Amino acid sequence: MSSFTVRTDLALEDRERIEGRGEEIHGVVLEEERRDESGICVTRVKIETKNGAKVMGKPIGTYITLEAPALTEQDEAYHREVSEELARQLRSVIPDVQKEQAVLIVGLGNREVTADSLGPQVADRLFVNRHVMLEFGKAAYNKGKMHRISCIVPGVMARTGMESAEIVHGIVKETKPDVLIAVDALAARSTRRLNRTIQVTTSGISPGSGVGNHRNALSAETLGVPVIAIGVPTVVDAATIVGDALERMEKDSGLQIIGGREHPQAVSELNNMYVTSKDIDEMIRRLSATVSEGINLALNMEAILSHKE
Amino acid sequence: MSSFTVRTDLALEDRERIEGRGEEIHGVVLEEERRDESGICVTRVKIETKNGAKVMGKPIGTYITLEAPALTEQDEAYHREVSEELARQLRSVIPDVQKEQAVLIVGLGNREVTADSLGPQVADRLFVNRHVMLEFGKAAYNKGKMHRISCIVPGVMARTGMESAEIVHGIVKETKPDVLIAVDALAARSTRRLNRTIQVTTSGISPGSGVGNHRNALSAETLGVPVIAIGVPTVVDAATIVGDALERMEKDSGLQIIGGREHPQAVSELNNMYVTSKDIDEMIRRLSATVSEGINLALNMEAILSHKE
Amino acid sequence: MSSFTVRTDLALEDRERIEGRGEEIHGVVLEEERRDESGICVTRVKIETKNGAKVMGKPIGTYITLEAPALTEQDEAYHREVSEELARQLRSVIPDVQKEQAVLIVGLGNREVTADSLGPQVADRLFVNRHVMLEFGKAAYNKGKMHRISCIVPGVMARTGMESAEIVHGIVKETKPDVLIAVDALAARSTRRLNRTIQVTTSGISPGSGVGNHRNALSAETLGVPVIAIGVPTVVDAATIVGDALERMEKDSGLQIIGGREHPQAVSELNNMYVTSKDIDEMIRRLSATVSEGINLALNMEAILSHKE
Amino acid sequence: MSSFTVRTDLALEDRERIEGRGEEIHGVVLEEERRDESGICVTRVKIETKNGAKVMGKPIGTYITLEAPALTEQDEAYHREVSEELARQLRSVIPDVQKEQAVLIVGLGNREVTADSLGPQVADRLFVNRHVMLEFGKAAYNKGKMHRISCIVPGVMARTGMESAEIVHGIVKETKPDVLIAVDALAARSTRRLNRTIQVTTSGISPGSGVGNHRNALSAETLGVPVIAIGVPTVVDAATIVGDALERMEKDSGLQIIGGREHPQAVSELNNMYVTSKDIDEMIRRLSATVSEGINLALNMEAILSHKE
Repeated sequence: MSSFTVRTDLALEDRERIEGRGEEIHGVVLEEERRDESGICVTRVKIETKNGAKVMGKPIGTYITLEAPALTEQDEAYHREVSEELARQLRSVIPDVQKEQAVLIVGLGNREVTADSLGPQVADRLFVNRHVMLEFGKAAYNKGKMHRISCIVPGVMARTGMESAEIVHGIVKETKPDVLIAVDALAARSTRRLNRTIQVTTSGISPGSGVGNHRNALSAETLGVPVIAIGVPTVVDAATIVGDALERMEKDSGLQIIGGREHPQAVSELNNMYVTSKDIDEMIRRLSATVSEGINLALNMEAILSHKE
Repeated sequence: MSSFTVRTDLALEDRERIEGRGEEIHGVVLEEERRDESGICVTRVKIETKNGAKVMGKPIGTYITLEAPALTEQDEAYHREVSEELARQLRSVIPDVQKEQAVLIVGLGNREVTADSLGPQVADRLFVNRHVMLEFGKAAYNKGKMHRISCIVPGVMARTGMESAEIVHGIVKETKPDVLIAVDALAARSTRRLNRTIQVTTSGISPGSGVGNHRNALSAETLGVPVIAIGVPTVVDAATIVGDALERMEKDSGLQIIGGREHPQAVSELNNMYVTSKDIDEMIRRLSATVSEGINLALNMEAILSHKE
Repeated sequence: MSSFTVRTDLALEDRERIEGRGEEIHGVVLEEERRDESGICVTRVKIETKNGAKVMGKPIGTYITLEAPALTEQDEAYHREVSEELARQLRSVIPDVQKEQAVLIVGLGNREVTADSLGPQVADRLFVNRHVMLEFGKAAYNKGKMHRISCIVPGVMARTGMESAEIVHGIVKETKPDVLIAVDALAARSTRRLNRTIQVTTSGISPGSGVGNHRNALSAETLGVPVIAIGVPTVVDAATIVGDALERMEKDSGLQIIGGREHPQAVSELNNMYVTSKDIDEMIRRLSATVSEGINLALNMEAILSHKE
Repeated sequence: MSSFTVRTDLALEDRERIEGRGEEIHGVVLEEERRDESGICVTRVKIETKNGAKVMGKPIGTYITLEAPALTEQDEAYHREVSEELARQLRSVIPDVQKEQAVLIVGLGNREVTADSLGPQVADRLFVNRHVMLEFGKAAYNKGKMHRISCIVPGVMARTGMESAEIVHGIVKETKPDVLIAVDALAARSTRRLNRTIQVTTSGISPGSGVGNHRNALSAETLGVPVIAIGVPTVVDAATIVGDALERMEKDSGLQIIGGREHPQAVSELNNMYVTSKDIDEMIRRLSATVSEGINLALNMEAILSHKE
């Protein structure tokens, strides 16, 4: 019944596992690019086969990560570069992006918990035109080509009595978008990536998820349209952070303290707790500006993005 | 494209037409009760036949009005009486109210325009339990009989790109409630009724409506489940208010000033303007507390309401 | 005790009186400029002598009005031009603007009434640095010259139990700024100017004011520092609008309807009512972006504004 | 520049130190009461002499703690009991509480960071009457004796450029209250006390405090009026929680892992991080209702509180 479920699904953290192996995996393609000027690092993991999915422990799909260390700082020009990079990556995973389409954007999360409010705050800043296009057509905007864009903030179960996924399923059936983009705050395993990593995936998302809860998933399988998920890690599960610190401690000291046994009390007390940064309000404000600008750019069919596309 | 459409549909204002005729209308039943202690006046118009609907210019259905003059004052005991009266009237129009049912409540309107935020603010204060009932059953609450209650705030078209009705239709199809309750701010024709009248109707509601726009209606016909609408007039259309003042002026003075001709410029400038009270924030805060308490009481199967039911 | 007092003090509306006279007034200088590209019209009335003040019915001071008809539209480039123009005009009335100073900006009004939330919403978007300057000096920003900027939203009397002016007086005595800028929503006499006019004055402002209530004034006299007020008309008093419509009606029709007598009931019912536009949430959002950008630009000592300064 | 400074100053956690000593301290009086029905435990530590202050490491004053384990649950009757208990304790520390006084309540913290928004959310629910009393006297309320109550939410330094303390100092000098009550979210050392402990102290509070920063303190010494602080721990500093877990681990295992050395990297990464509960929005909503009701009851001179006073 908690209103803020911490998810631990940053694909980047699996990448490190692969690299550690020093070998190629059949069915998995890994690309990495670094933008010289901005230092933004883009990693793209494509899981193409069932074997790849098995080895990686993730569904078939594309997993893109933007690491932008300065994203936590107040630097408008830098944030603009990140927005452009995000727009480019989004275009690379939207099927038939040059064709006019109906796009539904979903702002997941809880507007009233700062660290979980990324989705709703991004939604507040999106360009939305479906209602105008339906009534007046493109003429209203004096433009050549336009997607038809709509947006929903489903809210949290404690307030609605419904899964976010139920609400989204209903709206998708009623309004029949061609593609769905979902935005959510994520949990990372370590504080190092908080507020400076943006993940774009094509394999769906489970809002407030538990593993295997298929009823709640937003994915191409459950919705019948492509689903692109944009996530930014803004919290770390508190039990995870302490558990990890203890394990590292053990390793560093060469002593066995907790090994093999269940987590000590110090950790279990932390269930239903999360860790976040003290300036999370500023962080979310900036991140939501950057992510919404990225989406708006990607869906503006007349915006030309620099760099190769 | 405006985000706040002023509706002029307070049924009470038609009642006055009937009374003026001093005769009975076939197919229309009119009842009026006054609570002695509180001075709350309850009027119930039942339009039962096609003839009644034609004469009244409204669909077949029940139209209940609570007039509570002191509703604009800060008097908790009085507001509690109004909540109880509202609960009683709601129970009188919910089909099979003694049977456990799934109820979806819809908070219509625009959270960001104070005078239009009644629906969202009522939604914030509702008791919601559908998610708990689905997971744990009534056992979670230690109660005998319970409705399963869910709630949605669809938001406004300028932000979502979708009609509120589209969003609600989708959610109704997906979650299959037995009855729908919609809450919205209304427009009255005169300032006298602002913030002191609650209307309960069974004939549906058209959020942000224009007449005859069936695609947008929330009604038993379009949704396949009973729809109960709760409305409170919080604004008056500005052109209406000036137009009415001018007409009264004409009548009082016995002179023909605007008669027959189109509205003068003074009035047409007021298109897309509305009139509301300067303390509308306090008004909405109190009204949303009163209306939400009325709904919570009505749907609490173990709450016993005083007076005859 | 109402939380939103409608003020009727748009100086522009006095200007029309002067022009009507077709003659010069001793002690009053009137200048008007029109920006060709943008169509923005800047009027500057300087009341320089006691005689001028008497004739104009306003204190000695400078009254600047920016009329920008397209301000109600969503056109970023146009809003940027208005911001620049506002910045230019602000610099023209801040004493010793080339010297580093401590500036306190006050966001007046009620955040919870949309039409009255301009001041608080402008405050949310201001660049503020006083705390950083006090702790680290200009070094923190790598800049040559900087003002020290602070900001307060005093809130409304119904919530604080204090006049906004009391709160501001206390803060001014404690933090000793060199100049104060106050931002507030205003009332116009006609709907034609709503949301498209920005007024900058140097003669002070009375938040939630009644005439002659000196205890409440924010002015150079009461505070001991120069006070620059920025106001945008967002509402019209409802009684005013109907009264004016009736008078025009009388004049047009040549008939005497209300002349000489007190206002008819139709008007008196409108006390404590105001008129505003249905899309006031969008209006305030855009206006607050434009006004805050104007202030930020004016106070950024390294920003170079185009046009003559 | 961070907008949310985690404070670690729950006096209760010092009490445990005293108790461990099993002896009396000169100049320190300790009382403990447990309410049988509700299980609420009230501890009162009075530090009366300089010696007591030295031993306890805290200024002379009264430190009251209400521990109410069920405070995290949604039980209105229980919350009402806590409100009454809080009212009783507040009355015990307000000097001359039977005499009519001017009371200023300060809601400290950051409205935009959920875990830090207790002060502002309490302020939203306070009964405020100073402005009415000044204009109309007690007659407006038809009551015998009334305090004059005002309230301010100073906001955070990142937004105002001023210390909260500067703003409050200015307002105190201007409006001259007889007593000040400050409400703030606190940091505990352990998660066990989060959201279920209310602390009332008479020795002042330092909003966003660092040790020894006297310029920022709100206290009888700096303000010249009695200061009563109400705090509820809603977060734990993340570095503290991990550090503590590690130390306990060491003790339990009998091994020296980190002893004597500086905190390991796992901990230092956590600077500027805090831990809070996933349902912090519900917690703050309930706590602010309970604390505001406690203050409103305490300051209502006609409310009679049960139990001994």
